[in-house]
Amino acid sequence: MIDATSATRSSLAEIQRTEPLVRAWVHVAADTALAQATEIDDRAGKTPMPLAGLTVGVKDIVDVAGMPTMAGFEPFANRIAERDSAVAAGLRAAGATILGKTTTTQFAVADPTVTRNPWNLERSPAGSSSGSAAAVAAGHVDLAIGSQTAGSTLRPAAFCGVVGFKPSFGWTSRAGMIPLSDTLDTVGLFSRTVTHAALLFDVLAAEGIERAGECEAEAPARIGFWSDAAQLATDDVAHLIEAALTRAIQAGAVVEDAVPPAHYRDLLAIHHITMLVDAAAAHEKQFRQRPESYHPRVRSLIETGMAIPAHAYVRAQILRREYREKALANWATVDVIALPTAETSAVGLEWTGSPALQAVVTLFGLPAISLPAGLSPDGLPVGIQLVATTALGNARLLRIARWMEALLDPLPAIPTGINPDIDTDAGH
Amino acid sequence: MIDATSATRSSLAEIQRTEPLVRAWVHVAADTALAQATEIDDRAGKTPMPLAGLTVGVKDIVDVAGMPTMAGFEPFANRIAERDSAVAAGLRAAGATILGKTTTTQFAVADPTVTRNPWNLERSPAGSSSGSAAAVAAGHVDLAIGSQTAGSTLRPAAFCGVVGFKPSFGWTSRAGMIPLSDTLDTVGLFSRTVTHAALLFDVLAAEGIERAGECEAEAPARIGFWSDAAQLATDDVAHLIEAALTRAIQAGAVVEDAVPPAHYRDLLAIHHITMLVDAAAAHEKQFRQRPESYHPRVRSLIETGMAIPAHAYVRAQILRREYREKALANWATVDVIALPTAETSAVGLEWTGSPALQAVVTLFGLPAISLPAGLSPDGLPVGIQLVATTALGNARLLRIARWMEALLDPLPAIPTGINPDIDTDAGH
Repeated sequence: MIDATSATRSSLAEIQRTEPLVRAWVHVAADTALAQATEIDDRAGKTPMPLAGLTVGVKDIVDVAGMPTMAGFEPFANRIAERDSAVAAGLRAAGATILGKTTTTQFAVADPTVTRNPWNLERSPAGSSSGSAAAVAAGHVDLAIGSQTAGSTLRPAAFCGVVGFKPSFGWTSRAGMIPLSDTLDTVGLFSRTVTHAALLFDVLAAEGIERAGECEAEAPARIGFWSDAAQLATDDVAHLIEAALTRAIQAGAVVEDAVPPAHYRDLLAIHHITMLVDAAAAHEKQFRQRPESYHPRVRSLIETGMAIPAHAYVRAQILRREYREKALANWATVDVIALPTAETSAVGLEWTGSPALQAVVTLFGLPAISLPAGLSPDGLPVGIQLVATTALGNARLLRIARWMEALLDPLPAIPTGINPDIDTDAGH
Repeated sequence: MIDATSATRSSLAEIQRTEPLVRAWVHVAADTALAQATEIDDRAGKTPMPLAGLTVGVKDIVDVAGMPTMAGFEPFANRIAERDSAVAAGLRAAGATILGKTTTTQFAVADPTVTRNPWNLERSPAGSSSGSAAAVAAGHVDLAIGSQTAGSTLRPAAFCGVVGFKPSFGWTSRAGMIPLSDTLDTVGLFSRTVTHAALLFDVLAAEGIERAGECEAEAPARIGFWSDAAQLATDDVAHLIEAALTRAIQAGAVVEDAVPPAHYRDLLAIHHITMLVDAAAAHEKQFRQRPESYHPRVRSLIETGMAIPAHAYVRAQILRREYREKALANWATVDVIALPTAETSAVGLEWTGSPALQAVVTLFGLPAISLPAGLSPDGLPVGIQLVATTALGNARLLRIARWMEALLDPLPAIPTGINPDIDTDAGH
């Protein structure tokens, strides 16, 4: 295992080299990180530090003591967090070196950031966790913290060719994180390997949540393919998912059609009503005070949310629960659900892509992970999404993801020259 | 143990004798009940039937196959349930004889029914489970099923001098029950003893819910008195609660002030917003079709609920969760919370009384039980309410309630001549 100081120096060097192109960071705390690394190396061997020697970036809606939390909102430009969020405190205790804060779309909605996709600088890294995904893809850090309310972790992971993990709703404390939706917001994780995702998950998971531990690969007997959702994807994406599932079949798994709990478009509508209203509830007061500081897509979300009557929201919540129960009942006989992570590979810089294929799983609060499944003909990564079929099946999903990861070819080096040297087998 | 046929005949005789005064029933299924009793007696000894020999009434918002479910709503006058609700099926399987359907305020809201309080026929039995409480108090049946969205089980139990138990939210299936609030509605139980409440609870509790079993009395070391709430009660009620707690202290318990999570009035406001909107969601469609059939208090609830913006509802839900967590944290050091069940003894027939002292516990989804604590100077029963301090503490609450029940004097015979002969020690 590499010592923290060397790891931090190496991270800082990569940031210096390619950050002007990628623009993944709103704040890099070089001195603080090096001081923290020295301290970690001093403590090494004395206390267990599962993340020692790993560097991490934190999405700029999550407080890290002494660093800004701007959330892409001008009025927060001089806001310095006094205290660590629960997540930052967890990272610190586990010996990770926090390099700084990564870009986020304003309030984790959908207005693009300045960040570029390391695979093609004219493409979007997706959002809202734009900087976290790009920083891991570019080799600036080993790990990053994001969040997901619709598809803000899994889609950036897919667009940037890294692993993105959104564990079960409520899996870790959200204290010290700027809320968008109380019933959807989930802390998400970025890494280059499933092993690293499992390590990070185990460190941050709340009491009572099953840990992944050694996270040995587990072969699923039956994979349910969510074809109703998958048909939204382009042919290029569909072919790569099909190829991945063909390998799964060759490895002994049965792939069958998963019975959906309802038409996919109806489930998306329930997610949309929920997010609109929850966002209006989170922002209404501040929005009335400073409407001019809100970016167009956040503004539209809040204004639409404020126009929805409460009984419509409640009906949506009842349907949400009923369809979730139906999904879990329908899927009781399969080990994991598979679908494309996103409909396309990375889109142009004018938007952050469609959350349609990530949002319903978030609505149901189920664990989901995205793995790089290969490159589409445009030379951009495509992700395959695996979803747990039980509410708290985080650890098992990680084990199945390790199995799937081993079946898939590693992505080639990024042709832009950004991050040419990452060895995905390195580290823990 | 009495055989089911004798029990049923005895119940029917009591109904015949005093139902013209009490008016607790919308439907008495004498022939069906006797046929069912014969069948139960035939099965006796062959299959375990924990409720054999006990008679039960079911609130008229809960389906019993072959009987009407009218919910106090004219357009439902000819509506016969084709299938048992989950609760009715559970009762039947456990060998209870279902005598019929008991009155409910329209859709379990607050417009009074025709039912009278057996203790004073010019007083209200409370609501919304008016008939269930009155039928048990009058000795028409041993047990009854009710529901609670604000205070619809505990307040009628207090007004009518019987045991009322509202277990934790979600403790049993609501399938086949007409909804009022998806996030508050809880099946409630009426009986004359805690032992019977425990028996009924164990029969109906869902998988994974801890059963009460033998339900031996358990002495609490520390009782938290919710004084902030209790101060809403009249002096007459307060004196009886104080007397009950004095006995608890004499029996070795420490009574201390429970630290409330917020001002009681604020918690009530959150309950109110929640119920208004949930009721609007449940009724909006039907209300638009038949507004003229809705009684004034239901109409007002729905119309007000429809005027509430969704973001206000969501804010209320966030506060609801935060205050609930705070309450559970504050109360971690006490074994049970005590407060009066209602502010007054039975009110006049023009309304069903105030739900204020029952509603917040329902908002938090915590188990609560009401026991008769004595008669106030007006000769009417007063209830003491005990609340579990953990989310699923149903079984422990029942054990503590048994202890408290033994400290309290049994109520005298009802002076109206209704139900003079009930032996509360009889049965199981």
